[in-house]
Amino acid sequence: MSAYQSLVNQFARLNKLAHASTFLGWDQEVMMPPGGAENRAQAMAELHQLQHEMITAERMGDWFEEAAQESLSPDQQANLREMRRQWLQSSCLPSDLVQAQSLASSRCAHAWREQRKHNDWNGFLGNFRELVNLSRQEAQARQAAADGAFTTPYDALLDLYSSGDTSASIGQVFEGLKAQLPGLIDQVIERQQQRPAVDLTGQYPIGDQEQLGRTVMAVLGFDFGKGRLDISSHPFSTGVRGDHRITTRYQESGFIDSLMGIVHETGHASYEAGLPADWDGQPVGEARSMSIHESQSLLFEKQLLLSKPFVQYLTPLIKQHFPVLSEVTADQIWQSMAHVRRSLIRVEADEVTYPMHIVLRYEIESQLINGEMEAEDIPAAWAEKVQAYLGLDTTDNYADGCLQDIHWPSGAFGYFPSYTLGALNAAQFFAAMRRDITGLDEQLRAGDVSALRQWLADKVWSQGSFLSAQELMTRATGEATNPEYFINHIRQRYLAD
Amino acid sequence: MSAYQSLVNQFARLNKLAHASTFLGWDQEVMMPPGGAENRAQAMAELHQLQHEMITAERMGDWFEEAAQESLSPDQQANLREMRRQWLQSSCLPSDLVQAQSLASSRCAHAWREQRKHNDWNGFLGNFRELVNLSRQEAQARQAAADGAFTTPYDALLDLYSSGDTSASIGQVFEGLKAQLPGLIDQVIERQQQRPAVDLTGQYPIGDQEQLGRTVMAVLGFDFGKGRLDISSHPFSTGVRGDHRITTRYQESGFIDSLMGIVHETGHASYEAGLPADWDGQPVGEARSMSIHESQSLLFEKQLLLSKPFVQYLTPLIKQHFPVLSEVTADQIWQSMAHVRRSLIRVEADEVTYPMHIVLRYEIESQLINGEMEAEDIPAAWAEKVQAYLGLDTTDNYADGCLQDIHWPSGAFGYFPSYTLGALNAAQFFAAMRRDITGLDEQLRAGDVSALRQWLADKVWSQGSFLSAQELMTRATGEATNPEYFINHIRQRYLAD
Repeated sequence: MSAYQSLVNQFARLNKLAHASTFLGWDQEVMMPPGGAENRAQAMAELHQLQHEMITAERMGDWFEEAAQESLSPDQQANLREMRRQWLQSSCLPSDLVQAQSLASSRCAHAWREQRKHNDWNGFLGNFRELVNLSRQEAQARQAAADGAFTTPYDALLDLYSSGDTSASIGQVFEGLKAQLPGLIDQVIERQQQRPAVDLTGQYPIGDQEQLGRTVMAVLGFDFGKGRLDISSHPFSTGVRGDHRITTRYQESGFIDSLMGIVHETGHASYEAGLPADWDGQPVGEARSMSIHESQSLLFEKQLLLSKPFVQYLTPLIKQHFPVLSEVTADQIWQSMAHVRRSLIRVEADEVTYPMHIVLRYEIESQLINGEMEAEDIPAAWAEKVQAYLGLDTTDNYADGCLQDIHWPSGAFGYFPSYTLGALNAAQFFAAMRRDITGLDEQLRAGDVSALRQWLADKVWSQGSFLSAQELMTRATGEATNPEYFINHIRQRYLAD
Repeated sequence: MSAYQSLVNQFARLNKLAHASTFLGWDQEVMMPPGGAENRAQAMAELHQLQHEMITAERMGDWFEEAAQESLSPDQQANLREMRRQWLQSSCLPSDLVQAQSLASSRCAHAWREQRKHNDWNGFLGNFRELVNLSRQEAQARQAAADGAFTTPYDALLDLYSSGDTSASIGQVFEGLKAQLPGLIDQVIERQQQRPAVDLTGQYPIGDQEQLGRTVMAVLGFDFGKGRLDISSHPFSTGVRGDHRITTRYQESGFIDSLMGIVHETGHASYEAGLPADWDGQPVGEARSMSIHESQSLLFEKQLLLSKPFVQYLTPLIKQHFPVLSEVTADQIWQSMAHVRRSLIRVEADEVTYPMHIVLRYEIESQLINGEMEAEDIPAAWAEKVQAYLGLDTTDNYADGCLQDIHWPSGAFGYFPSYTLGALNAAQFFAAMRRDITGLDEQLRAGDVSALRQWLADKVWSQGSFLSAQELMTRATGEATNPEYFINHIRQRYLAD
């Protein structure tokens, strides 16, 4: 057997263990009674350990060396490249560092839940300093293992979530946002204030919300023979080919949040379902990166669902499920869905203000990991930036400031940029799609997303990880990630008519 | 580390992989969309393969040899004995036989689904001969590996499901049933015919059936913080400590079948929840055998639920969930639940006739495996026995005769006796409990099962696999499995008043 084939077999076995982790994880969030937590955690840790042993097995290094000399097709070469990337990511850290991080992040994230409630920055700092220290070590170790591929330690962490996007490229893109978005936010809110406010708060039975969600999922192409919709406290999307599972949460007082959540996760699930079947279970058959994954969920949620033509299509469906809205117009529903306001809290932010929440986090975490800022300096930097970018005050309000997200307390540095890269890529894909598909608005007004899905399937989903993120952007849209498409999208949607 | 401790660690790891298989299996029956089947089957096979590699690892043999010389407590010795039993069961078969069986049973069971519908015995026989041949080889290999522990090849298969029960002991017990039960069936049915028939067929909304089921589960001590009730096409019980999951199925036309199914599975789940916590994840901490497991489910379903005092307690609960029954008496509900009739189909049989279905299967499969009967002789033997034991005719009716069960087509020989051993053990436990607990009937009439549960927890659940099945029976009830308790139970319940 060739070394390449040995690697293929090893990754296929790994993929089957990952299948087990995937569905045990889903079950844990969606089905498991509280009593199951302890045994589940132990079983998950054992599976994790087995996967780690499998991917770091000694012979892996030999296989990679031999495979590099073998005659492989371009597709096989791409798969080998992605296998090697995963192998290096899994094997480049000393195991005592991994263990120390696991302990420190558990401790920090666990304590954070209470500390956030009590606005206890100093208590948090006690655990967090150690976690930052370990994450810096991780970043340096990853940078060292990558033979000069990363110009800063932070870039090595970025690669875990937004492979192919660097702090140089992201920095430039985010500068473009900083230059224009704060001013646009002012204009959008000012204009919004000139219209009468729309308030759709009311009583929307959860069963009806779920039915509406399922109907919209089906319209968007979700196949319930190959997936499920369930409830969890934090919405997510997971699964494997043929079994894509998304979750949402419901509040009786409004149907918009659950609907937007469902459509967001349907975007993630559509990407996964459209990955190249021939490469199922192999690294090159996986989704490219979080910044591309988030572009698909945000394309569905923000570009498609919030578009005025699609809201026109949706309005009768919504009224059918909620007769209480019989007098409401499509425009009022759109206004309610697309309402913009400055908020301290990232997860409550609309698409216009959201990127500024990310820019400030990116600037802080990159400095932190690269050793240009210390943990104790975060609150001051946060207060300054949230004032400059969003015109809001977080002085002494850590709970709604730098303590609001779970990412840092759990040691996930380098993740935040993928949210906004996703939003920018989504706008850029949608603009390209609009050029390529004649009559897109008419199709959306009729609830017909077939051309939209075909475009995404061709340009994004079926590409798996064959291309780098920016190669994929360039082939699909003609250029690398460019914030102007997002800026234009905001202008068009909120300021044009 | 001692060899014993190495074995403990290895079995603890195995247990965590078994955890994954358990919940992936549950998911497959209860949650998985059809599209997930292919990837799930592959992931389950990989987990199975890993478990097989782990339990048959070369060093296991050395550890068992060394551990036999180590100084161990009696509990540790019992655990070592059970570890060795599982190890021998997993490692004594040549892998080419296992593979051939896996293929032959998949083929035979798959084709059987259609062949049964078309009454196609000859088509079935084509696949089944090979399966019988392989099962005989399995039985012989298991017998040979056990150093004289089994007097016949069939006994080696019995040991997989009813460890500690032998064909000698079962043969004697079943002769007791054959001598008395056919005559009793005549008497019970004759007597039943003297009363006006009760027909509770109607419209019972599934949501209400589920609510009733949950209420009764809670009355029986099921903790919903440590378990779930769901729907599947074939009811089952599975799980781990802290997370016990049972399923049922509903038909709108009646509430009795789903309720009896729920109570049956609650019995299984109660046994699992009551196993010794200190030995969680170790072989000696597992349930003793299928014949003890089935005694717990049948104790809940037949001895407890169908007892007249408990039906009196249940009647107002049932009426509360189904107001349509407001005029029905407890006695009528009892008659409807405890209706006896001769049926060709085992899974539709009541507790009085059920054992004769098992006796005939036991007689045929033991002869088949021991080479005293050939597959082609089954229909004639079946027709003769079903006539003699149940007074029914299956001449040329294979679909409702020897083709009705999935056990043989899937190669599960030796399983059937555990159903009836369970029923006999349940009657024997209940008789002993009645001697030990003062006022049991009054407690059941009040829906108070605490003393009953405590008795079972002490005598059965907490015993794990420390005792052999017949040691357990003897310590709990004063004697080994004795069919007279079941016969007396039938007389008392159906013929006494």
